Order: sequence, then C-alpha cells, then structure tokens
Amino acid sequence: MMKEVDRCRKSLELAAEGKIVALVSGGDPGIYAMAGLVFEMARENNQQVKIEVIAGIAALNACASRLGAPLMHDFAAISLSDLLTPWGVIEKRLQAAASADFVVAIYNPKSKRRTEQIVKARDIFLKYRDPGTPVGVVTAATRENEKVELTTLEDMLNCDINMQSTVIVGNSMTFEWQGFMITPRGYKEKYQF
Amino acid sequence: MMKEVDRCRKSLELAAEGKIVALVSGGDPGIYAMAGLVFEMARENNQQVKIEVIAGIAALNACASRLGAPLMHDFAAISLSDLLTPWGVIEKRLQAAASADFVVAIYNPKSKRRTEQIVKARDIFLKYRDPGTPVGVVTAATRENEKVELTTLEDMLNCDINMQSTVIVGNSMTFEWQGFMITPRGYKEKYQF
Repeated sequence: MMKEVDRCRKSLELAAEGKIVALVSGGDPGIYAMAGLVFEMARENNQQVKIEVIAGIAALNACASRLGAPLMHDFAAISLSDLLTPWGVIEKRLQAAASADFVVAIYNPKSKRRTEQIVKARDIFLKYRDPGTPVGVVTAATRENEKVELTTLEDMLNCDINMQSTVIVGNSMTFEWQGFMITPRGYKEKYQF
Repeated sequence: MMKEVDRCRKSLELAAEGKIVALVSGGDPGIYAMAGLVFEMARENNQQVKIEVIAGIAALNACASRLGAPLMHDFAAISLSDLLTPWGVIEKRLQAAASADFVVAIYNPKSKRRTEQIVKARDIFLKYRDPGTPVGVVTAATRENEKVELTTLEDMLNCDINMQSTVIVGNSMTFEWQGFMITPRGYKEKYQF
C-alpha cells in the first residue's frame, strides 16, 4: 500500500514539472486500483493537472471469462480487506448482497495474516443460499500460474485461496455445465431455443 | 433480443459443422451480454462444442473511466430491464444496494417505453443517501456520440438518459472534484499524502 502512495506521489510530481506521465496499474485502474488514489492525492495537494483514466480488464472481467459466464445478471463486488474499511461495513454489504440474490465477486478474500474473513463471508452466504451453489475461485487470472477451480459454497474453503484469488459466488439460478459456471439471464423463459 | 438468440443459434450451428466461430459482442461478452446465452443454448441442445470467452471492457469499466474513479470501492451492477426479470426482484436489489452503501452502476436505465423504473430507483436511493450524492450519466461511452454528465441524485432525472446510458450512483463518500466523480478507498485515513 505504501508503494502505491509513493508511485502516485512521484507521478504527480513529474506531471507538475510538465511531463506526460503514464501510471500503470494491473487490471482496470478504476476498479479497486490506483485511479482513485491519483485523484485523491491531486485534490489533497490542490494540484492542477490533466488526468485521463484508461479502462482495462478488471479481475472480475478476467475471472468471469475463465469460469464461463457467471456475471450475466446483477452482481456485486466486495473486498474483504479490512485494512482501509471497517469489518462492520463489509459484513453489512455481504449480508445485503447475499439476501438480495446478487452474484458476488469477492476481492482480497484472504492473505497470510487475514484468514477469517472468507470463513465469515461463506457463513453469511449459507444463511441465504443452497450449499450446492456454484462458486468459482480464480487465482492469478491470465498469468502463467493461473488456476481455475469450480466448487460449491459447501466446499469452497478447501480451495487454494490467496491474495491473488478472486472468488465468485453464484446466485440462486447459477448452474454448472461441462466445467463452466453460468448464470442465466432469463431468455429461456421468453424465447424458444 | 430475438436477434441475440438468432445470432447465437447460427454460431452454434456453424460450430457444430466443425467451423471455428467468433461471436462478437459489444462491451464484455460476460457482463449482461452474449456469453451466457451461448452456454444456455449449447446446454439446451446438449451440444458438444469447445467454448472460450474472451473478456472485454464492459460498460461499467468504460463509463467509470470517463467519469473519473467512481468504482474504487464496493459496488453493485443492477439492470432495470424487467423484460427478463420481475420488477420485485430488481426493487429488492436496489433496496439492498442502496441501504448497504454500495456504489451502483445501473444498466438499461430507460427506454422509450420503459420510463418509470429510473424514477423508482432514484426514490429508493433518496431514502438512504443525500440528495447531493454525485451521480454520473454516461451515454454511448467511447463512441462518436459519447456524452458524459456529472450530476446529483436530486437532479439526475434532468439528464438525457436512454438505452445507451449507464448511470453510476455514488456511495456516501463519493465526491466531485474538478468535474470528476471519485469514490475514495480510505487511504487518506491511514497514510500521509
């Protein structure tokens, strides 16, 4: 985290000197990444600088594509990291998303020191969803060490979940077919296939 | 919608003949788009075909980048189209997302015939959020006729909202700065800028 602040400060310093600076961030800089920090720091320092954000493929886009089509209906993205957000707020969001049947993409599910949050999150989902609900765990998506696991709410804690993982929990309609995780949109009820 | 089903059927027919087929979809095929339909139809017809999904820049990625950095914290995507989803389900999700302080990206906010849903959605947000909460309306993102409007919950219905628009409603921390819409991550409380 400190490195993010340092990189951002350096970029703004160089920009203030009149240079054109590209600050590169993994995934989509606008989703849980560095775009917001740039604006926050520029505002804090009352800096006049032209800023442009270039969208990218976020973890949720990449992980969904590897699993099949889990994000075809309403979904929520929730980070389990309580470093910058109080756990009470995170818990409230998990509860809301689980009870309203959102597909949920869980960011920062677990780190070496932070291991309990994913257990609590699963407990919340189990209050509202079937233990057999499909869950996808994608680690290091699109990288050399990529790992894709399709499991269920019941069994998900047996998967290898770490800081590079994104966990996608299906809604009540999500199904597994030939190793893919799919959330239907509802076409089948309206149109003849 | 019927064209989507037709295109999908044709793609699967060609694939069944042994051809390699690319089905192209705007945005990210995995987010409210055509990837799910391909799987649904292939399953329905019990078709053995190798399917690969290539992620793309969804409307929410593109619209967020045009507005600044509104999706820097937990967010939900909700479609207001009740063609394939009962309005009761949509309303429940709006309520849940609004009450748990998610940033919300609203897909399919309004069409020529469907004009009341966005009014109802705004009413739900106003129960939980300040009328001055920043709201971004991006129409035809990245296209020639792109239009970006930064407004508030109070004034959003005065914007030009149509089928090509995505509406992003900020959370309780989202602020406007120099024409940008920014949701802070919480760094400021932890680190010295």
